[in-house]
Amino acid sequence: MTYATSLVCRECGHETELEPLNACDFCFGPLEVAYDYDRMRGNVTRESIQNGPRSIWRYIDLLPVDPDFAVDLGVGNTPLLRANNLAERLGMRELYIKNDTTNPTWSFKDRVVAVASSRARMFGFDTLACASTGNLANSVAAHAARAGMRSVVFIPHDLEVGKVLGSAVYNPTIVSVNGSYDDVNRLCSELADSRQWAFVNINVRPYYGEGSRTLGFETVEQLGWRAPEQCVVPMASGALFTKIHKGMKEFMQLGLIDEAPVKMIGAQAAGCSPITTAFQNDTMNIRPVKPNTIAKSLAIGNPADGYYALKTMEETGGGATSCTDDQVIENIKLLAETEGVFAE
Amino acid sequence: MTYATSLVCRECGHETELEPLNACDFCFGPLEVAYDYDRMRGNVTRESIQNGPRSIWRYIDLLPVDPDFAVDLGVGNTPLLRANNLAERLGMRELYIKNDTTNPTWSFKDRVVAVASSRARMFGFDTLACASTGNLANSVAAHAARAGMRSVVFIPHDLEVGKVLGSAVYNPTIVSVNGSYDDVNRLCSELADSRQWAFVNINVRPYYGEGSRTLGFETVEQLGWRAPEQCVVPMASGALFTKIHKGMKEFMQLGLIDEAPVKMIGAQAAGCSPITTAFQNDTMNIRPVKPNTIAKSLAIGNPADGYYALKTMEETGGGATSCTDDQVIENIKLLAETEGVFAE
Repeated sequence: MTYATSLVCRECGHETELEPLNACDFCFGPLEVAYDYDRMRGNVTRESIQNGPRSIWRYIDLLPVDPDFAVDLGVGNTPLLRANNLAERLGMRELYIKNDTTNPTWSFKDRVVAVASSRARMFGFDTLACASTGNLANSVAAHAARAGMRSVVFIPHDLEVGKVLGSAVYNPTIVSVNGSYDDVNRLCSELADSRQWAFVNINVRPYYGEGSRTLGFETVEQLGWRAPEQCVVPMASGALFTKIHKGMKEFMQLGLIDEAPVKMIGAQAAGCSPITTAFQNDTMNIRPVKPNTIAKSLAIGNPADGYYALKTMEETGGGATSCTDDQVIENIKLLAETEGVFAE
Repeated sequence: MTYATSLVCRECGHETELEPLNACDFCFGPLEVAYDYDRMRGNVTRESIQNGPRSIWRYIDLLPVDPDFAVDLGVGNTPLLRANNLAERLGMRELYIKNDTTNPTWSFKDRVVAVASSRARMFGFDTLACASTGNLANSVAAHAARAGMRSVVFIPHDLEVGKVLGSAVYNPTIVSVNGSYDDVNRLCSELADSRQWAFVNINVRPYYGEGSRTLGFETVEQLGWRAPEQCVVPMASGALFTKIHKGMKEFMQLGLIDEAPVKMIGAQAAGCSPITTAFQNDTMNIRPVKPNTIAKSLAIGNPADGYYALKTMEETGGGATSCTDDQVIENIKLLAETEGVFAE
């Protein structure tokens, strides 16, 4: 049983059944999971959540996953730290850091892969797959192992050995593709059509994306059931950014927290900042770029959810910013030195 | 306010005040923190714990730390996973894995350093120090940063660069000592006497050790307030092994869980197994060894708490075992492949 009802196209609104599908049959727009919020109301309460497990699965009523199929590695439930030292250095009054490096494979990708792998199991897939240059592959291989599924990880042939070793321990099939990361992605899209494999960020992407909302749910709960005034989120495709906001809004709609505005602020590396550039140029047209930054996990030159990220900024009175690679390194150090948190 | 009352010598029972002291003034025996359990009873309840934060600080009433001084990086609250895949492979009925790799600096050392750094702050120290070859240095440097303290990390001069880099990001003072790890430790013992520095595993070691009990508390709570029938723990000094058992026994004494026997089983690498060897030879005399194993974090040739570990095995009807380096590697892979958990 889940409260998820259908997939709805974010462009034309066309509704379709909960299937392993990424794009609308009519307009090729992106599909998103819809829920029966009316039926949720009264059943999903602060108490029902607090009585749940200490992981993202305490929010299972808000996820498109039947409890019998949940792949549980203990994802989420990561620290929200009040960062007084850093706040002082930055001249801020109240600042919190959500440390998602303490997930089972040490990145927030565990949140999305937990939901994608669980839904893949509901669909009856026996193979979990992805194209990746690092963190995603770790999480896919780990979740597949835990679920007793096979995993297949596609990587560009010139990826450094060190990046793959961390995934190899979980024993996935690793396919090295003679081409760029874009080539690898294109190959995976074709395979998703021809094979009965669940590609977490292709044919089960609508479910995958829903996992990011747990970062919004968790933060709000850890703040003592209130939304933050401002929320700063790194942006690659823009999906994490929009989904965190969606999660907070849902808690308001369900009456779990008071209605309050949340300014959503996105951050990109200057070497790959198509969303930030569009925001700064006051346009909704995102011009794809060729990434050139050390923040490789954020280096998506043509961000699938960039438009929706811009809409979220507009709607919340938020904004977007970018920083150079030198600033990235400087601020990794600043965060570690002031608060003891070492993040990528 | 804390329920800790004094330091008591584990050998001669001599009681002394809560000070930065490791050894008994009378017999040089190891000191241990004593608590007023009578005053705890009724005040420390399942409810008081469940209403606490989602970290080891939910057990603060059982730790020698005043809440005002707690250094909080969000340590603990790590997943306890029912491991059905691995249980099947091993022919077991019910098996759980406590995944402490999801701590803020990715090892259980965060539990002990959290308590040591907090108590050091209570004592008024402004510098946190340790001798280390890896995980401990990370945790000391991170906690010092969070606490606004200075940190000094002593390492053998021939340590690989990679081992130190992870700590360097927190900006500790790194002192490279021209000698073996044993030499480094000796130097630190001398410095602990002459400097006003808190060496986490020397002059504040009695407090440091208490942090390990949280692994026992947490496991029992996550099992639904019951103790496991058997508990397998890796052994280096033997302290973690004895402290986990102590934590479970305390929960029984306080009436938080039913009295039940817990067989304590210790594990060592064959290349450094002085405690296991003593157990297998049915003697309480531990013969120091020269370590030769890839499990370097466990490679303590002359284990300080080995005798107490043997006593715990005897008392609980437990035991000890060891495995070769080949088996260590094989079983790292087995755990990853069956359950998606990648541990050292």
